[in-house]
Amino acid sequence: MADALDKAREEVALGNRILANEGVLDAFGHVSARHPRDPKRYLLSRSRAPELVEPGDVIEYDLDSNPVNPTNEKLYAERVIHGEIYKARPDVMAVVHHHAPAMMPFCITGTPLVPVFHLGATAGANVPFWDQYDEFGDTNLLVVKPEEGASLARALGKSNLVLMNRHGATAVASDIQALVFRTIYSCRNAEFQFQAQALGTVTPLHRGEIERAGALNAMANVTTRTWEYWTMRLERSGNGFSPARKQRRRSKVRKPGKTKRRKR
Amino acid sequence: MADALDKAREEVALGNRILANEGVLDAFGHVSARHPRDPKRYLLSRSRAPELVEPGDVIEYDLDSNPVNPTNEKLYAERVIHGEIYKARPDVMAVVHHHAPAMMPFCITGTPLVPVFHLGATAGANVPFWDQYDEFGDTNLLVVKPEEGASLARALGKSNLVLMNRHGATAVASDIQALVFRTIYSCRNAEFQFQAQALGTVTPLHRGEIERAGALNAMANVTTRTWEYWTMRLERSGNGFSPARKQRRRSKVRKPGKTKRRKR
Amino acid sequence: MADALDKAREEVALGNRILANEGVLDAFGHVSARHPRDPKRYLLSRSRAPELVEPGDVIEYDLDSNPVNPTNEKLYAERVIHGEIYKARPDVMAVVHHHAPAMMPFCITGTPLVPVFHLGATAGANVPFWDQYDEFGDTNLLVVKPEEGASLARALGKSNLVLMNRHGATAVASDIQALVFRTIYSCRNAEFQFQAQALGTVTPLHRGEIERAGALNAMANVTTRTWEYWTMRLERSGNGFSPARKQRRRSKVRKPGKTKRRKR
Amino acid sequence: MADALDKAREEVALGNRILANEGVLDAFGHVSARHPRDPKRYLLSRSRAPELVEPGDVIEYDLDSNPVNPTNEKLYAERVIHGEIYKARPDVMAVVHHHAPAMMPFCITGTPLVPVFHLGATAGANVPFWDQYDEFGDTNLLVVKPEEGASLARALGKSNLVLMNRHGATAVASDIQALVFRTIYSCRNAEFQFQAQALGTVTPLHRGEIERAGALNAMANVTTRTWEYWTMRLERSGNGFSPARKQRRRSKVRKPGKTKRRKR
Repeated sequence: MADALDKAREEVALGNRILANEGVLDAFGHVSARHPRDPKRYLLSRSRAPELVEPGDVIEYDLDSNPVNPTNEKLYAERVIHGEIYKARPDVMAVVHHHAPAMMPFCITGTPLVPVFHLGATAGANVPFWDQYDEFGDTNLLVVKPEEGASLARALGKSNLVLMNRHGATAVASDIQALVFRTIYSCRNAEFQFQAQALGTVTPLHRGEIERAGALNAMANVTTRTWEYWTMRLERSGNGFSPARKQRRRSKVRKPGKTKRRKR
Repeated sequence: MADALDKAREEVALGNRILANEGVLDAFGHVSARHPRDPKRYLLSRSRAPELVEPGDVIEYDLDSNPVNPTNEKLYAERVIHGEIYKARPDVMAVVHHHAPAMMPFCITGTPLVPVFHLGATAGANVPFWDQYDEFGDTNLLVVKPEEGASLARALGKSNLVLMNRHGATAVASDIQALVFRTIYSCRNAEFQFQAQALGTVTPLHRGEIERAGALNAMANVTTRTWEYWTMRLERSGNGFSPARKQRRRSKVRKPGKTKRRKR
Repeated sequence: MADALDKAREEVALGNRILANEGVLDAFGHVSARHPRDPKRYLLSRSRAPELVEPGDVIEYDLDSNPVNPTNEKLYAERVIHGEIYKARPDVMAVVHHHAPAMMPFCITGTPLVPVFHLGATAGANVPFWDQYDEFGDTNLLVVKPEEGASLARALGKSNLVLMNRHGATAVASDIQALVFRTIYSCRNAEFQFQAQALGTVTPLHRGEIERAGALNAMANVTTRTWEYWTMRLERSGNGFSPARKQRRRSKVRKPGKTKRRKR
Repeated sequence: MADALDKAREEVALGNRILANEGVLDAFGHVSARHPRDPKRYLLSRSRAPELVEPGDVIEYDLDSNPVNPTNEKLYAERVIHGEIYKARPDVMAVVHHHAPAMMPFCITGTPLVPVFHLGATAGANVPFWDQYDEFGDTNLLVVKPEEGASLARALGKSNLVLMNRHGATAVASDIQALVFRTIYSCRNAEFQFQAQALGTVTPLHRGEIERAGALNAMANVTTRTWEYWTMRLERSGNGFSPARKQRRRSKVRKPGKTKRRKR
């Protein structure tokens, strides 16, 4: 029974590290997964830069974004993004919030993001735009109150990705691997669209193409290939989980409620 | 006899890795070579990210893109790009399909790619543009049917490079080394053209300059220099084939038809 | 007593190295801190590229930018930037001068830098623009005379950051960690603003948002996270201070007035 | 007597490697120095990618660009660029020819390069533009004939840098260290000017500022700092000359006229 949870913690850590290694996340942003056995819980790291997240940093939350076990760790202020989306979208098994440089020009100007190449279709035909100011007025733009998270979840609706005015983006998927694929290739799409608009006239994929190409990340020879590739790049960067390190790390996973910070 | 084939497998693996190392290929794209002894066969890796391809991953295909020996490996869905071009172009000995970031703004907008500096002349005076939708309507944009590959080969015609609408590009050459040169410097040309169009007015090389400069990659002190350079950079990246590793790898080349996946 | 000074020297060296590692500083630019016990002194490296600065390179200056102890080391020509700002701004505990590529298009064109995302609010609502030519006519643009430094300090006023025409930028903060945060995220803001202006219409954060988001770098789970992240990245780059190296280095800190250059 | 020449060979190799490491040179481009004792000779590597050049690769040429000692090595086709400039400009002690990405948009559009920040003043107030086609019609754009080199030298005139239409650039200086400084910061200037023109209106430095700032690379605390920085970065990249490696290499310097290619 413990194995599925161990694996899920490790995938959350890997998802964080891969997206940092591929330039999507920096000191900020976070990846979560729904609990593998309890759909009313989700898994998210303590407050820490994504590329440093280890399986032992991953904390269980209920859908109101309270830690299931008491903890003195510093927590992400914006964890309600995850909790409120898991509430609103039973189909969603993984969530990422990020400020990827590729997306920011779209988040700042409100320019619609549209699929401009086949792999970019993973973003979906419709990427909504949410402005926290509309409903909440002056804030520090962090999504910290449950009602702010719920508002963002409503804006997301049934889409795969929502842009957040002058802040960043949030994406969802059916598992961590699909989430990483969606996030990396929606960022590539944003980069290509940005450059294409500077060069000439941009017409998005046809609606039927978006539907068909949007399913590419479910093809077995696509997911196998991409996951092996990103994992290997992470290993080669010197920041991955080698089997030896994983073994060593797993044995150091802290028991819930044990609050002393590890020495580093 | 086996040596020419071993060398060709290794060159296919090297071509994949170099183009990944130089930022042309990511998780996707693939490099092939015509079989060194049988012009009715070609060599292409099993489905795998290009920077991970090893000589032992390279599979023999007939020109209808069926594996010569039965295999349970995952195969590239788009291998017909290679087979149909080898059919249509007896002069072509190496093919690459890629989604290089440098090319994508041109693939998305249909802006003509023209040679803007001497090394960019390797792309040729005329780079055709192909849209899968014109002939096949809504697809996922992958080139998977023989007739789709044949249509692309027709669009390529006698050119060196063809752009594919909202998808990527495909280039051909007389051997792997010339293919790598053409691919890297046509991408550089795309980058420079993109920036030059943002800065001022672009006029391409004169027709006579294109012809003369287009032959540079056949000069002995050019090919020697570039191949040594890209190979050395690959070695220094930690992802190359050192003689020791090559030796080790060669001894592990799987026999055709042997389908068990190696542990990694 | 020596410990606070040792720690401050080390933070100055770390601040220099982190900003170099994150692409803000190159061969030029410098980070200083006010002396931890004597507000009439500040700490700045001898003339050296920032990513090479070691704690033992850090020299004590009075606020007229004269070394407190005689030295034969080469000194930064522009140290008056630091001294004159520490004079004019008793609240300022750390200063950086840099030519970050992200800022240069704004420094060259005089385009106003405005907060375009929440983390960019650290620059403040008003970023003044200073042109040395206005007051001093033809110079080599280096800020070397006390009156040039004083003029820049007046232009800075109560702001967090001042742009310098065709030269660079200077930023201030309440400590080195906040300075590094402000510098990195004001550069990110400049990059995003540059791209957003190319893509569409840019509207800055609302005034109330700037005030609230501008305080983010004082949140405990923000500063802990960012400093751990940048320090870890520096360590992984191979250019950091590991505990072992720090120990070794500290023992080699030169006594003030000892002027012989170390062999390297 | 041999020491000055050994040192010069090593500086030529270092100049090549530093400019490759800083992104100015790729597989192409070359750095030369005038012979330290004989102004009628210059030193240039055999045909090889710049980041691989070793002191033992450096060949002596007369000013007609013939090797002083017979050799079977492959030679750079464009060595007349160096020879003809050393003939025309007795003050020049070092020359580089390159296709730096930063310069290419200017080389392709003919947009004048102007100093937009203090360190960019090293390019000088006037950067001429040369088009090989004007005098020689259709070529492959390589500068291979003595008269082509002489034409380029005439276009350079008394300037520090000349742009070559749809090809690249050539810069000169009083020694290798000043050449490296000029080349890196003229490229930075090109990048900043390119971006500044996209963002707003660009006005260059005042004439008096260009003269004063143009002399910065002769200040002792500038040259010491930059050379230490670029050398250290090269060492850290794993591609430098450590004392041990230098020792080892020096002992392998080939005698002139000895033509067998080393095994690698």
